[in-house]
Amino acid sequence: MSSIGVPFYKGTTPHQTDREHSSLLQKSLNLTILRAYGKLSTMKIVVAPDSFKGSVSALEAASAMEHGLRRVFPDAVIEKIPMADGGEGTVQSLVDATGGHLQTRRVLGPLKNEVDAQFGILSDGETAVIEMASASGLTLVEPHERNPLRTTTYGTGQLIHAALKAGCRRLIIGIGGSATNDGGAGMAEALGVRLLDTNGKQIQRGGGNLGQLTSIDATELHPAIAETETVVACDVNNPLTGRDGASHVYGPQKGATPEMIKTLDGHLAHFDKILTHTLGKSFNDIPGAGAAGGLGAGLMAFLNAELRLGIDIMIDAVNLRERVKGAAVVFTGEGQLDFQTAFGKTPVGVAKIAKAHNIPVIAIAGGIAEGAEAVYDAGIDAMLGIVQEPMSLENAVTDASRLIADTAEQAARLIVIGQNEFHKRRTAKLKEKREGRKDGRWEG
Amino acid sequence: MSSIGVPFYKGTTPHQTDREHSSLLQKSLNLTILRAYGKLSTMKIVVAPDSFKGSVSALEAASAMEHGLRRVFPDAVIEKIPMADGGEGTVQSLVDATGGHLQTRRVLGPLKNEVDAQFGILSDGETAVIEMASASGLTLVEPHERNPLRTTTYGTGQLIHAALKAGCRRLIIGIGGSATNDGGAGMAEALGVRLLDTNGKQIQRGGGNLGQLTSIDATELHPAIAETETVVACDVNNPLTGRDGASHVYGPQKGATPEMIKTLDGHLAHFDKILTHTLGKSFNDIPGAGAAGGLGAGLMAFLNAELRLGIDIMIDAVNLRERVKGAAVVFTGEGQLDFQTAFGKTPVGVAKIAKAHNIPVIAIAGGIAEGAEAVYDAGIDAMLGIVQEPMSLENAVTDASRLIADTAEQAARLIVIGQNEFHKRRTAKLKEKREGRKDGRWEG
Repeated sequence: MSSIGVPFYKGTTPHQTDREHSSLLQKSLNLTILRAYGKLSTMKIVVAPDSFKGSVSALEAASAMEHGLRRVFPDAVIEKIPMADGGEGTVQSLVDATGGHLQTRRVLGPLKNEVDAQFGILSDGETAVIEMASASGLTLVEPHERNPLRTTTYGTGQLIHAALKAGCRRLIIGIGGSATNDGGAGMAEALGVRLLDTNGKQIQRGGGNLGQLTSIDATELHPAIAETETVVACDVNNPLTGRDGASHVYGPQKGATPEMIKTLDGHLAHFDKILTHTLGKSFNDIPGAGAAGGLGAGLMAFLNAELRLGIDIMIDAVNLRERVKGAAVVFTGEGQLDFQTAFGKTPVGVAKIAKAHNIPVIAIAGGIAEGAEAVYDAGIDAMLGIVQEPMSLENAVTDASRLIADTAEQAARLIVIGQNEFHKRRTAKLKEKREGRKDGRWEG
Repeated sequence: MSSIGVPFYKGTTPHQTDREHSSLLQKSLNLTILRAYGKLSTMKIVVAPDSFKGSVSALEAASAMEHGLRRVFPDAVIEKIPMADGGEGTVQSLVDATGGHLQTRRVLGPLKNEVDAQFGILSDGETAVIEMASASGLTLVEPHERNPLRTTTYGTGQLIHAALKAGCRRLIIGIGGSATNDGGAGMAEALGVRLLDTNGKQIQRGGGNLGQLTSIDATELHPAIAETETVVACDVNNPLTGRDGASHVYGPQKGATPEMIKTLDGHLAHFDKILTHTLGKSFNDIPGAGAAGGLGAGLMAFLNAELRLGIDIMIDAVNLRERVKGAAVVFTGEGQLDFQTAFGKTPVGVAKIAKAHNIPVIAIAGGIAEGAEAVYDAGIDAMLGIVQEPMSLENAVTDASRLIADTAEQAARLIVIGQNEFHKRRTAKLKEKREGRKDGRWEG
């Protein structure tokens, strides 16, 4: 399960305009010596950023980096790998990374409304990638309507159903940003599971109705699920219930009052009891069961899903381990680098892989907040903000592609300065040796 | 005259805290191989920024750069050279660069008011550095009082007098930012020159009174001037009079109305006629005669001054040509990099010197405006803005030292990545050779 992998694009070739620009640079950097010396190999560079939230997609960020790097390294093999960490943008990045495509389905939203939700089918035609927030997300509910007693994951189940119908037998599901607290009951229902009350009647949707559940009939569960691998991007370890459970920790941001939290928590405990009775196994204490209002538990129970860190799923899905091999340097990045980046965010995930191959990692970010130094320990060797002068967030967002390209160019220029410096030092040492001098000094 | 040079500080030694920080870096960058290989020499780095106007002095900027670089290169010899281009901050930078000191004198301001003005005496005790704006600058006059018919350079002459009295026989005079249009008549008067009307009486001060001048008596000119070398930092080529002259081009910003401009221009032409009569030489068409309301002409006439680009004077004064020798890299910078930077500003002046020794140049700036790419042609190899995330100009100004240090650190980190990359490539090539392979590929 940990080896979901799909075909990927090969590194691209240089643009003509960037080639022209670069001849200017070579003059200014006096690269001729180095380039003659360095002809033995074409430098490979991997660019693997996350999206810059609210600004550019991961692919757009990667393309901007490539554009800037080409101005300095016109002949480099640049491999663009749009990344994500399981959160917003994961579908787009995986589709972009693999040359897949997006599908749109009209499904039931978190409340009674219908919404147009998207999911991705990767280029292998076998792997679907779904963000639950697209069908059942908090942003789909107006603040004054937020009420996890009523919200349902039914639409997420419909997306899964659509993916199965499209022939997908591998599912990658991101579960961040949910509006729900129904333990994935709605999702299960959409896939054929019957959630029954004492009268043998299907219970109403929404976390507030789970208390009426007395039995689960999974005989009509979509048959394709038996032959489907499901991996869930989950960055939290919450159990299903209790003080650290779904209702207590995430209920308030979904609109739950203290009273509602008590109700919801009791209902999820009851739900787990019925699950245990039906499937012979409790999901309450499995880390991540409480993610997305208990959807984590539901996906484990009905789809036998594996919960993993989003970035790790992504690394497998885009085959990052193989693709960084032989790279001289890896570029990554995201909208903001801060102390949180060190906890499972894309730049650090990418850095971990690169470091296993002893490849330096440079992060380019929309902003570098104080405390970002924590990423050094996580394997990032240098970080640059894209903002070139005092400016508003709005301007930085609007101009992000140009700023990212310019920043990548400067990073490349500095790398060349380092290459040249080392080359000069070596040359000086050789000259010293020839001249038999031993004073250990050199002149530029 | 082009060789004004003064003693300078030697490169500094590492700070202990930065050393500690750097061991962390070496771990993250995996520098051990490189450092073992690179032991043959201690890297020398020159940091030679201008001030970041309105924020940090050139010395403060240089210290911040040093601080950031030390985190990556704890053993480097870092030579700090505060720079300037003849404009605001030149006195401070030269005093800082040479270990000189500031002097304060109460002198006559541009109008009737008295002001406390500063000048610098460099560590040789022989060279004084004066900014005319300190005594006769536009910022000393309230906008509603600006009137170049009345303003005088008398205070600037008093500063020169004070410098001569202190024993200085070499003068560096910056003449930017003047409030005056008196051809340097006031300056001359303060040094003993008598400017007489038809009745043999001293004329009143201010450009508006020059029309009454009929003869000049320079017999009482300060005798030390005969043995004093004076060099004037001047970045403009304006003649004294006419359409491109002092009054027409710079009069308006000093408060002159079109009518006043006509008067002032006529007065300067008259002044030059009397100068020609007295000294046997016209100064009208000498490039720079019209700088600072004709103070350029006055300094040439009475002090036999040489006019040069401010940055070139600075380069000589701090002995930059010698001091960059052997440097692996030169850092420079200023408040803003833009298309104007390529025209005689500090970063480009520094770059010109470094390039003569084939040393790469990195510019760090408070802001990098569109069009700054022009500096590449002028020898700057890479440029980084200090702003790390969207922020206001105020915050960038307040936090400049920290931001400059962090930016220098990132530049250093990228240089190390380049050094390592080159080292790895070499190692791979050697390995290839040993193994007799010829396919020209390498693996990191």
